[in-house]
Amino acid sequence: MTTQSPTHSPAVQTDVPLPAAATEAATQVATREQITDLGEGLRHATGGRYGPVRDLARASVPADLMVRDPSLSMPEAREWTRQALRRLVGLGMAGSGFPVAQGGLDDPGRSCIDFEMTAHGDLSLTVKSGVHFGLYGGAVTALGSTWHHERFIPANLSLEQVGCYAMTEFGHGSDVASLETTITYDRDSDELVVHSPTPSSVKTYIGAAAEDAHIATVYGQLVVDGTSHGVHVVLVPLRDEAGAALPGVTLGDNGSKGGLLGVDNGTIRFEQVRVPRSMLLDRYGGIDDSGAYVSDIENDNKRFFTMLGTLVRGRICVAAGAAVSARKALSVATRYAVRRRQFGAPDRQGEVVLLDYLAHQRKLLPAIATSYAHMFALNEIVERLQELHEAPEKDQVAQRELETRAAGLKAVITRFANDTNQVCREACGGAGYMAENGLTVLRQDADVFATFEGDNTVLLQLVAKGLLTGYKETWGDLDMRGMVQFAARSIGGQFVEATAVRPLVDRLVAAAARRSEDETLLERGWHLSMFADREKHVLETLANRLRKAKDGDAFEAFNNAQDHVLLAARTHMDRVVLEAFVAGIDALEEGEVRDALERLCTLYALNSIEADSGWFQAHNRMSAARAKAVTAQVNKLCGELRPVAVELVEGMGVPEAWLGSAMLTEPERWTPGSAD
Amino acid sequence: MTTQSPTHSPAVQTDVPLPAAATEAATQVATREQITDLGEGLRHATGGRYGPVRDLARASVPADLMVRDPSLSMPEAREWTRQALRRLVGLGMAGSGFPVAQGGLDDPGRSCIDFEMTAHGDLSLTVKSGVHFGLYGGAVTALGSTWHHERFIPANLSLEQVGCYAMTEFGHGSDVASLETTITYDRDSDELVVHSPTPSSVKTYIGAAAEDAHIATVYGQLVVDGTSHGVHVVLVPLRDEAGAALPGVTLGDNGSKGGLLGVDNGTIRFEQVRVPRSMLLDRYGGIDDSGAYVSDIENDNKRFFTMLGTLVRGRICVAAGAAVSARKALSVATRYAVRRRQFGAPDRQGEVVLLDYLAHQRKLLPAIATSYAHMFALNEIVERLQELHEAPEKDQVAQRELETRAAGLKAVITRFANDTNQVCREACGGAGYMAENGLTVLRQDADVFATFEGDNTVLLQLVAKGLLTGYKETWGDLDMRGMVQFAARSIGGQFVEATAVRPLVDRLVAAAARRSEDETLLERGWHLSMFADREKHVLETLANRLRKAKDGDAFEAFNNAQDHVLLAARTHMDRVVLEAFVAGIDALEEGEVRDALERLCTLYALNSIEADSGWFQAHNRMSAARAKAVTAQVNKLCGELRPVAVELVEGMGVPEAWLGSAMLTEPERWTPGSAD
Repeated sequence: MTTQSPTHSPAVQTDVPLPAAATEAATQVATREQITDLGEGLRHATGGRYGPVRDLARASVPADLMVRDPSLSMPEAREWTRQALRRLVGLGMAGSGFPVAQGGLDDPGRSCIDFEMTAHGDLSLTVKSGVHFGLYGGAVTALGSTWHHERFIPANLSLEQVGCYAMTEFGHGSDVASLETTITYDRDSDELVVHSPTPSSVKTYIGAAAEDAHIATVYGQLVVDGTSHGVHVVLVPLRDEAGAALPGVTLGDNGSKGGLLGVDNGTIRFEQVRVPRSMLLDRYGGIDDSGAYVSDIENDNKRFFTMLGTLVRGRICVAAGAAVSARKALSVATRYAVRRRQFGAPDRQGEVVLLDYLAHQRKLLPAIATSYAHMFALNEIVERLQELHEAPEKDQVAQRELETRAAGLKAVITRFANDTNQVCREACGGAGYMAENGLTVLRQDADVFATFEGDNTVLLQLVAKGLLTGYKETWGDLDMRGMVQFAARSIGGQFVEATAVRPLVDRLVAAAARRSEDETLLERGWHLSMFADREKHVLETLANRLRKAKDGDAFEAFNNAQDHVLLAARTHMDRVVLEAFVAGIDALEEGEVRDALERLCTLYALNSIEADSGWFQAHNRMSAARAKAVTAQVNKLCGELRPVAVELVEGMGVPEAWLGSAMLTEPERWTPGSAD
Repeated sequence: MTTQSPTHSPAVQTDVPLPAAATEAATQVATREQITDLGEGLRHATGGRYGPVRDLARASVPADLMVRDPSLSMPEAREWTRQALRRLVGLGMAGSGFPVAQGGLDDPGRSCIDFEMTAHGDLSLTVKSGVHFGLYGGAVTALGSTWHHERFIPANLSLEQVGCYAMTEFGHGSDVASLETTITYDRDSDELVVHSPTPSSVKTYIGAAAEDAHIATVYGQLVVDGTSHGVHVVLVPLRDEAGAALPGVTLGDNGSKGGLLGVDNGTIRFEQVRVPRSMLLDRYGGIDDSGAYVSDIENDNKRFFTMLGTLVRGRICVAAGAAVSARKALSVATRYAVRRRQFGAPDRQGEVVLLDYLAHQRKLLPAIATSYAHMFALNEIVERLQELHEAPEKDQVAQRELETRAAGLKAVITRFANDTNQVCREACGGAGYMAENGLTVLRQDADVFATFEGDNTVLLQLVAKGLLTGYKETWGDLDMRGMVQFAARSIGGQFVEATAVRPLVDRLVAAAARRSEDETLLERGWHLSMFADREKHVLETLANRLRKAKDGDAFEAFNNAQDHVLLAARTHMDRVVLEAFVAGIDALEEGEVRDALERLCTLYALNSIEADSGWFQAHNRMSAARAKAVTAQVNKLCGELRPVAVELVEGMGVPEAWLGSAMLTEPERWTPGSAD
């Protein structure tokens, strides 16, 4: 993590590759956006390794690309998104993750930041871009050979060939291993036959399938000489140049959705569609010239999870995008809450500003604190992704740990975003329900991020399994027997990972342990030990419970403990997020930026402890008096942060021009007693 | 509450007035809808006084009126709603609340049920109908004289004159007393001059203002001879017969919203618009022939709250509508969860049905239990509304209590509905995000019910104030000084209302008190005493806190305790809802219907206790061991209710044909391994 002092610095960093077109726009935006010193300091402090990339996007992406008219009909929204995607490519926000040989930057970390910055605008554009470049292009890059790269990536980057990612079927979403589509090798013609054998095997919800996609990465069971080798991925052309479906391909339109109206999600049915053998993305498993199946990874299950490991970037992107939606919603709601007045009060002149009410502070400030925690956790995982990508040798355990963390962050952050976006809508009352004020489309679009790239409940189970098995085995499905059996022999010293933050955490915990309970409420060490202790206890008791049940019915043992499994995952992620926040603050110099972040970190920690007050008391980790003191302290912190609320949302880094909120640009309408 | 045995009975009750057109359709629907004995028994048990009215609607309203194509654009949705409103009138679901002299039934209770049944379908239609008949027509009925009834209600009932309800302004929503619109009496011309003096005084979010409304009930400050008499309501024509705005009236369109696309919400600006004096709805205050202001209620504040008291029906309707949205969402998600399979498990044939997972049961079953609780609470308040309406003498304290309860139920149920609708969407994964499956439009439409008819936070404060003042004073604004001062002298024996359910509750509590803690987990008396004790403690400590602060800054005293104030309101409503559930069950005969409801009631109670586990432990109302036992018992109850989940949603009374969910009518697509 880079350490930057909270002083002014140019909005455009010259050491970041910058498309020519962007330079001019950058100057205009930088001039237009005026933020406070504290706001700017917070922006820098949360920038991390990719801070300059973020600043570049803030300075170079014009607001009209980020804000779409929310009243567009579905066909209009689709056309707007199609056009906007071309402009996005022109801004250089598409190719970071591709191989250098094909004009990319070979920087998957930066590609996550490109996604995140795009997500500051319209999420249909973000998802359309993410499907085409990230999922389709990413699969070709990660699962294909150099031949595939050379053959398909240039047309991807130029948008000449629109790609889609055909994984999900009506019958199977999160359970990828059970997909029904078949990819059967026909030795006689040296072709692969792609087929949808049942109604439930039809691919569905596939972004770009309804109108635009020319080609798909199709997930299906690879069958060679009658033997299934598990799920593999094959490239299948869908449409000819005129846009007509190719023979054997039936394309449908999912029509209206809960959001993302600009994305043309659709269905794909294959009727014995033939493609050359070379279309198989065969980096981890393929068919040689003799027609035999070959793979460097002998174990089918291990190969499957290695291939699925490429999903990690998508999950980080979805988490980052959801986090941005919450930051945008909080930016709108907070800026409104400091302008809007409602109800007079005794001893007060005029009506009271919304954010002066404790209940309103309670709605917004703990959520702002959590958003900051997520920023640091996301920086950490994006940087970790890139470090592992750059490492000369693959560290399998580290890779599994990264995948677990990505799954967990995706689940935790998308849940938070959906809750927060709704709170913000309601906190703006009727105005929040009007599309012109920038909250409705955002909330509807971000909703499905809870489902995209893996259902949150399934993902949290993956996290728990990773914890129970110490990342020693491949994972990814809901292998309950494996989880139950592993729990029987693991859970030892590997509970806490040896990371860079460990010495700092240990030091803070030790310092807090020397104080009396009365003094520790604001001590970071107490917060850290509460989070770590909660996780450790939940995980250990879960392991014991599963161990006791290991000779019985594995499904029942697992299922009876499912709420416990999910709690283990959630408390683990809470600790991971808090430690990322603590590490991020530790890297900063003393000053008002660090002071504000310390307060936010305390609010994040105490808010979480308050939410789990029942658990902490039931497990003798907190006295009744302490539980009440935590609530009082959360209220107090809300009051302390209230005066800098606008600076806090400035620091979250959403340029005001990108908020697309009429009530912020024409505040007089919503200000009681405003002059005519 | 009527007691009905859970046996089969004709779907159409012949003692309910039934429009001729409905009879034929009824037979068809009754034949089509096949439900189980338990489902039908639960439907009857939750029907209450208006059960036959509900059955009539289920049998007579055709599905194509209840389900609109979710892909309609805003203009198309508005046109669909306009046409559907005419059909609704033809079915006799519009006029129940109007005076008998004008063709109504003088039955405000039934008008709430008409709204509720309409809300089983498209909520744009429900709201459009609610604005025209309920708010506009209701204001004319409640605030106008016989002259107004005769002059305006027939054209309202026939839809010849579309009405809108112009209360909210950009600057003021929940704070009605501070509206800026002026209604100034001009003695010379004997006219009223309606004027919007500022940008923030422009009426906004007004349903039907954008396109359809011919006339509005306009809320504004009545000024006579330079003296303001507070908010009054005047009828102001908006459009001529050709639909053009009348002189001085500027109409705008709020455009796209977070939902309710079929409702043409708009803005209204008045520029010195003149109407005859007779247009003032002057039941509680008006201007006599000499030009003097006259009112039977001398106190301005009391008059204001008497007039606002007419909002009570709107709040009950909104609560009922939100409750239906949650029941629909739970009906869709539960029916999907018993069909959909995902992930294989050891020792299991095929993939596991979603609802067999504990985590999935946890998402749906406590919400189903809460929905049942709300059904009984809503029956109780609707019947109470009608009883007070029928009573020969007005009981002011009972009226205040009804208004408090309506405000509280509206806040609690709309919060629950928004949470539940989202949970259900996510519980159906990607399918839940597709509009064709019936969850997206419903969730978006119901969202604003948290804001309609009073922001939920404001409404909960009204509840707390009612509790603190023992309903002895008028209320309705955020009069903090009044609340603080009252708290200083009240809170005595009036804490628990003397209601019909009291002896039953006392008996159950006494029975539980005689048992040991180990035995009481399933005892209704223990649940009741936990709920009552929580409310009493929260309210008493709140009163003490405010009493101590009464000589200081009233706003600070109130504001520092605002989370405490909201908790008092919420815990009060929790008790009210539980007691309504208990009373409802008590009226039933023994049998499987009653058994199922007892289990649901226990799940509702324990789920609430579990959610407040931190509070109960911090206040020494529950031991650590008991807290853990509650969680285990909630899991156990979920498992016990799992086998009858479909019957439970049948009992919630949403005909399957009204769900508008493709995944329920074409389940083979979503069933893994389905035959081709």
